[in-house]
Amino acid sequence: MAVTSRDVAKLAGVSQPTVSRALRGDSKVSDRTRQAVLDAAEALGYVPSEAGRSLVTRQSRRIGVVVSDLTNPFYPYLIAPLHDELESRGYRMMVFTERSDQRMAASQLLTGSIDGAVLLTTVIGSPLPAELRRRGLPFVFLNREAGDGSGDAAVVDNVAGGRMAAHRLTQLGHRRIAGIFGPDQTSTGRERKLGFIMGLADAGVGLAEENTLEGPFESETGERGLRQLVDRPSDQWPTAVFCGNDVIAMGVINAAMTAGIQVPSDLSVLGFDDIPLASWEAFQLSTIGHDLDAMAASAARLLVQRLSPEGREKPAQRVVLRPELIERGTLRDLRTE
Amino acid sequence: MAVTSRDVAKLAGVSQPTVSRALRGDSKVSDRTRQAVLDAAEALGYVPSEAGRSLVTRQSRRIGVVVSDLTNPFYPYLIAPLHDELESRGYRMMVFTERSDQRMAASQLLTGSIDGAVLLTTVIGSPLPAELRRRGLPFVFLNREAGDGSGDAAVVDNVAGGRMAAHRLTQLGHRRIAGIFGPDQTSTGRERKLGFIMGLADAGVGLAEENTLEGPFESETGERGLRQLVDRPSDQWPTAVFCGNDVIAMGVINAAMTAGIQVPSDLSVLGFDDIPLASWEAFQLSTIGHDLDAMAASAARLLVQRLSPEGREKPAQRVVLRPELIERGTLRDLRTE
Repeated sequence: MAVTSRDVAKLAGVSQPTVSRALRGDSKVSDRTRQAVLDAAEALGYVPSEAGRSLVTRQSRRIGVVVSDLTNPFYPYLIAPLHDELESRGYRMMVFTERSDQRMAASQLLTGSIDGAVLLTTVIGSPLPAELRRRGLPFVFLNREAGDGSGDAAVVDNVAGGRMAAHRLTQLGHRRIAGIFGPDQTSTGRERKLGFIMGLADAGVGLAEENTLEGPFESETGERGLRQLVDRPSDQWPTAVFCGNDVIAMGVINAAMTAGIQVPSDLSVLGFDDIPLASWEAFQLSTIGHDLDAMAASAARLLVQRLSPEGREKPAQRVVLRPELIERGTLRDLRTE
Repeated sequence: MAVTSRDVAKLAGVSQPTVSRALRGDSKVSDRTRQAVLDAAEALGYVPSEAGRSLVTRQSRRIGVVVSDLTNPFYPYLIAPLHDELESRGYRMMVFTERSDQRMAASQLLTGSIDGAVLLTTVIGSPLPAELRRRGLPFVFLNREAGDGSGDAAVVDNVAGGRMAAHRLTQLGHRRIAGIFGPDQTSTGRERKLGFIMGLADAGVGLAEENTLEGPFESETGERGLRQLVDRPSDQWPTAVFCGNDVIAMGVINAAMTAGIQVPSDLSVLGFDDIPLASWEAFQLSTIGHDLDAMAASAARLLVQRLSPEGREKPAQRVVLRPELIERGTLRDLRTE
């Protein structure tokens, strides 16, 4: 149960208003009384206002969520459940957003009166996690991680998901397969690609260089990728394309529609994430799904545990969610033909 | 010039590190010294960290952006240009998000070390603007406003936009017309509806009660609305529906696809906002567009002006952008048939 100023007053042997005055630095309170109140407050872990609290104990009950590229429709779907989970644990959420991850300075977070941070868009090699660690601000990776296995993290098994995608496409009879992956400097981009290539290899299928594309996790990457894949005689087109995430896959579908290419009869498309848009009638995207709500809730739980006195010393924990194949309307079965 | 801990140390007659320790509540500092430091700090208006500073001088170079419902694909498209504009003016942005506008307490913002706020999801009658005004935190309305004409605001001319929508539909020969509007307690919901009804009246067309629907600015509102509009003999279906925003319109298109209803041959659909998804091949949504970037930039400019010493006293300013009709593929011309 939360400590109140009433508890502090009781322990210090003063009235409740005196507690507030003493902690405010009101000069009408004697030094002796002030010290008694400060001692009681410290013993109980109590400080008065939110801002004042952060000055003394660095306890603001606020969590910073660091995300670049809010316009990517993926992130809001993680931020909403994160908000709810943090709130249920007594924390407020503030979103720190930059146009790119590299521009998020540790100082921005450290001066923001937050108790901890959730990192949503970490790139491999970013100095931010090390800087936060050095300066003592607890944090958790959500969805993406630093790539060195360090720190608390809530992620999906991206390698398994990529492999699952390859297995399904090869099982359906596809052999000329393309991949449009996310950035290699993101754990999600790198690991999904790795798993996909491994999964193709399991079926004795290779990924040709001209069918291996990469770009930001944006629909434009899919649009550009589709145009590149069909910029050759049609008998050399891939029959299926695996995309680094659903947003890229929707870009592929969009560009295919524009070019008059039928999905899935001309081209099968498989995404990753199962964001709500994927199930829309206009897309009916088959995808490697995972539980976004559970992932966000796990990140909140890990961070809140880390903020507790006993949590500070614990070894890093990773929560790894299992992906699952969700079949909708964008995969063609070549075996039945 | 900003007061530093050096000034406090000088006035209190102690060393600079002692100032930090005293203000931190370090028990190694005597009560007498602590009191001297507190008195000096108070006399000079100084407190140490940024969180503390904001309590006294209110200068953090940080702006809070208040938004409920980040999962609505509309808001990120305002937040991104807002971020860039604020940054170019030397301000950092923090997003305060709640699941609903009513739950955003003024205290959350006032303890957040921000110089001002951008309100994105104000509802008419919300106590937040009055509370912020009472407590002296400058703010600007962006896209939605309080409905009483108070405060700085950057908005589109929603009445003109609604009217434009009605004029175009009636001009194309539609008479049995429906509207699925946003919430009546939002300025955007209320004014677009008002303009639309006025525009229909200009053409001598009424809006039947069974064709007047309302709901949150979400795709589900459009899906539900479409099902309701076609839950009657098909010769009584409306031939066109105007939607309170693009997100609702995409819900209508999605539900129409599911129900096998052809857009636009069975039903014309017109949105509002021209978010990037509207131009996707899967939607090709005709809509009342406005310049989201310019609106966000105007809000940033108004707020930064308001934060300047001379800006505090100026009367409230409203920037009202002009909407324009953007025709894509969801309007049927009944005159040519």
